[in-house]
Amino acid sequence: MSVVWGKVYLVGAGPGDPDLLTLKAARALRQADVVLHDDLVSQEILALIPRTVTLISVGKRCGEKRVSQEEINSMMVSYAAAGRQVVRLKSGDPMLFGRAGEEIDALRAANVEFEVVPGISAAFAAAAALEISLTDRRKASRVVFSSGHRARGAQEESTTEVIYMPGSDYAPIVRRLLKQGFAANTPCAIVSEASREQQSVLWSQLGSLSQLGALPAPSVLLVGEGLEAPLQNRRRNPSSKCKVLRLSAAADFLARDDKCGGRVEIYNQFA
Amino acid sequence: MSVVWGKVYLVGAGPGDPDLLTLKAARALRQADVVLHDDLVSQEILALIPRTVTLISVGKRCGEKRVSQEEINSMMVSYAAAGRQVVRLKSGDPMLFGRAGEEIDALRAANVEFEVVPGISAAFAAAAALEISLTDRRKASRVVFSSGHRARGAQEESTTEVIYMPGSDYAPIVRRLLKQGFAANTPCAIVSEASREQQSVLWSQLGSLSQLGALPAPSVLLVGEGLEAPLQNRRRNPSSKCKVLRLSAAADFLARDDKCGGRVEIYNQFA
Repeated sequence: MSVVWGKVYLVGAGPGDPDLLTLKAARALRQADVVLHDDLVSQEILALIPRTVTLISVGKRCGEKRVSQEEINSMMVSYAAAGRQVVRLKSGDPMLFGRAGEEIDALRAANVEFEVVPGISAAFAAAAALEISLTDRRKASRVVFSSGHRARGAQEESTTEVIYMPGSDYAPIVRRLLKQGFAANTPCAIVSEASREQQSVLWSQLGSLSQLGALPAPSVLLVGEGLEAPLQNRRRNPSSKCKVLRLSAAADFLARDDKCGGRVEIYNQFA
Repeated sequence: MSVVWGKVYLVGAGPGDPDLLTLKAARALRQADVVLHDDLVSQEILALIPRTVTLISVGKRCGEKRVSQEEINSMMVSYAAAGRQVVRLKSGDPMLFGRAGEEIDALRAANVEFEVVPGISAAFAAAAALEISLTDRRKASRVVFSSGHRARGAQEESTTEVIYMPGSDYAPIVRRLLKQGFAANTPCAIVSEASREQQSVLWSQLGSLSQLGALPAPSVLLVGEGLEAPLQNRRRNPSSKCKVLRLSAAADFLARDDKCGGRVEIYNQFA
């Protein structure tokens, strides 16, 4: 049962310089009724938010939570239920080292519409500051992002792999990842023309990724157990903003030169 | 010998949606005299560029270069020498899987002023599209970015490690990285409050990183051989926009609660 509620924007504030907000994030902040922000969001960015907006700090200070994750989830849902436009403002990008996974689960469970607005992550601001390429091809072919917090724990590290420029034949990459230890049934997704009108997504399992043709460039391949739950959610509740193609139609779609007609999602081999 | 030339902005165009340009990138495009862009930059973004701007495509198509890297370098330098404001526009973020390293070397060699403007990299646009956290703490503790092109080669992979939230005691992270195989003399840098007025940078070698106190949050630690050449460049030509602190002054700086006074760089243990 869907109710006409407000919407929640999970917004990346970027590294701190207000000039490094995206146009979309700046607009979301201007149009918000309520902003729930982390402590690490810079004062200069908070100063941009109109004084009529309800501004609530929900961050940790010195590792000590003042507002629990459950309280944050519940605030987002209640403000949206009251018809408010809510911005959940996170330092950097919302999908890296935050609690976006848990927040998205809570929003889905409450049937609240939401949208993720990416932000410049600290690694890229640092690379700009140091004037170094993170992947100078003469020196480094890959980048690993991990967290100091996690590093102190004893758990085994689990990984999300992101492969840029996967090309038109995924088979060599699949072989490399299987050799590297990923199971053939690991969920994966090719995201082609992300953020554009023609965005297309192919969800698959790693072992069967190469069975379909390639999606148009620019594209990235994401692989990891972290994709499983979102994949199941999406299959149950496909986005109303995407056309979902069946496999036979997908093959035709991929063979076409002209892929006009809005956003597309394809679910490979999930019978 | 420094001449009053134009300036080159290495700008990230983001994934394609013009709304995902940063405010700074949008302004750089409006104020440019010349834009040199890759093929993967979206038509919607190119359409934002005023018609008075000289727009030059320097990209590859189907892997085939139409303009060589040397020609691109030389164009940037000549336009800057003619007093032009140049934007070198790259899809995503300029510091990931582009040729920024080579372009920065050419700009340095020609003594051309430049600035890097970060962009939203495709991985973050893809995560937003899929509605998945790249590091859902229940499922994935790290992310690896690599390139499909490189994956097809036989070379051993070299890595830039980026550690978010390194905390106030770097020793456990240093131990983990040494155990992982990094040499004690691997160059590294802590970048604190990247992009902000109070940005501070501590360059070090991995083995001696823990000898000084911690820089203020938010910060990231970057480690890898890719930092060596930029570090040597910076030591030879420190940025005029940063105060360079000697070690004794650095210890005082790090002990202060109030770190006002603009940007700071510290070089640890490079006698």
